[in-house]
Amino acid sequence: MVESPDHEAHLATLDDRQIELVLRAYRERYHDLAADRRIKYVQIFKNHGERAGASYSHPHSQIIGIPIVPLRILEEREGMRAHAEPREGECLFCEILRRELASGRRVVAENGVFVALEPYTARFPFETWLLPKVHARAFETLSDADRAALAAILKDVLGRMDRMLDDPSFNYYIHTAPVREPVGTFHWHLEITPRLTEIAGFERGTGFYINPIVPEDAAAILKGEIRWAAARPSAT
Amino acid sequence: MVESPDHEAHLATLDDRQIELVLRAYRERYHDLAADRRIKYVQIFKNHGERAGASYSHPHSQIIGIPIVPLRILEEREGMRAHAEPREGECLFCEILRRELASGRRVVAENGVFVALEPYTARFPFETWLLPKVHARAFETLSDADRAALAAILKDVLGRMDRMLDDPSFNYYIHTAPVREPVGTFHWHLEITPRLTEIAGFERGTGFYINPIVPEDAAAILKGEIRWAAARPSAT
Repeated sequence: MVESPDHEAHLATLDDRQIELVLRAYRERYHDLAADRRIKYVQIFKNHGERAGASYSHPHSQIIGIPIVPLRILEEREGMRAHAEPREGECLFCEILRRELASGRRVVAENGVFVALEPYTARFPFETWLLPKVHARAFETLSDADRAALAAILKDVLGRMDRMLDDPSFNYYIHTAPVREPVGTFHWHLEITPRLTEIAGFERGTGFYINPIVPEDAAAILKGEIRWAAARPSAT
Repeated sequence: MVESPDHEAHLATLDDRQIELVLRAYRERYHDLAADRRIKYVQIFKNHGERAGASYSHPHSQIIGIPIVPLRILEEREGMRAHAEPREGECLFCEILRRELASGRRVVAENGVFVALEPYTARFPFETWLLPKVHARAFETLSDADRAALAAILKDVLGRMDRMLDDPSFNYYIHTAPVREPVGTFHWHLEITPRLTEIAGFERGTGFYINPIVPEDAAAILKGEIRWAAARPSAT
């Protein structure tokens, strides 16, 4: 999905109206794919920069309909189920939001509808999640008014990464409830993962991730409170 | 763990005796780390080339003792348990070996003790596994005689990758039974993953891997039966 006619455009610097149009196109394409009974999940994602696997330099997103529910969604749903069961159905992500907003140490930005935060157990340096504050199962139910709030926080966070981290390669992807799933807990969100370190043999062998920057420092850097160079670790 | 005093050395071109010494050092360091009661798993791995996350260009391996059993090992063990339960304890990897040796289409190399094969559902182009033919739970029980056979097949496969794929960056890592685990099925093996394509937003979002080369072609290319350029896909 082409995001702009301008080859040099970047979501961080497009005007708000243009980003809203990108998000509207996500939603419209989502509904079109979801109308196909064979499709069980719609993966919306973006690759920016060569290190993030972008095959084209022209700014674009990708939307793929999948005939099965992805492994990562099954894992997240299982984690949410295990959390909710002994807690009268409380949503795991609602609890994360409550605790993170109370602490503030890992919150990067916030508006009336969305929060951007560094997850407590971030796998990657400057991994950032955007979450709706009020529980919402699925991205595709996003209202027109809330779409403006999402465009604003997405532009804000990508702009911070662009400025503070010197235009890093990054991926983002939306995690939402599977298509036509009538029940089951989910809390949709968008995960941004800059590509500043390489996944190597330890990560591939174990499934564990070495992240040299604690999320509290990552949040402070993205908020402009400390400079990246001061926190930047040497190669290990 | 430094593999050679020669800065330009590559496991694919070291002499057999030197590779055996590398494997002997793996085993000796393994036993030393495993003697520490806090260590639950010892991850032996190697990063070669910048794209594979190697921080130093001098040839080296890494051995890390971990105080918990890695996620990937738990997942493999769960898969093996689910396979064995309805089949009177048959080992999943022993069945894979039997079927792959009978078919031969994904086998890259073989000697009296080891097989090198492209897994049926390879995640990465030219992902190659080395497995002992006779069921063995743990790498660290490898005999001196079998170590020579492992050195020979490791050198053979890395040499094929070096020649056919033009010295690609790669990771390899050993999957073996957890330290001091008295029971539980495992069949140790070494996984080699060349770094020819990038993991991007689709893989991160879903946990599914896009692999543009079928394992049968990958095996034929590593055996020199067809040339890589003929099978090489364009960027997607």
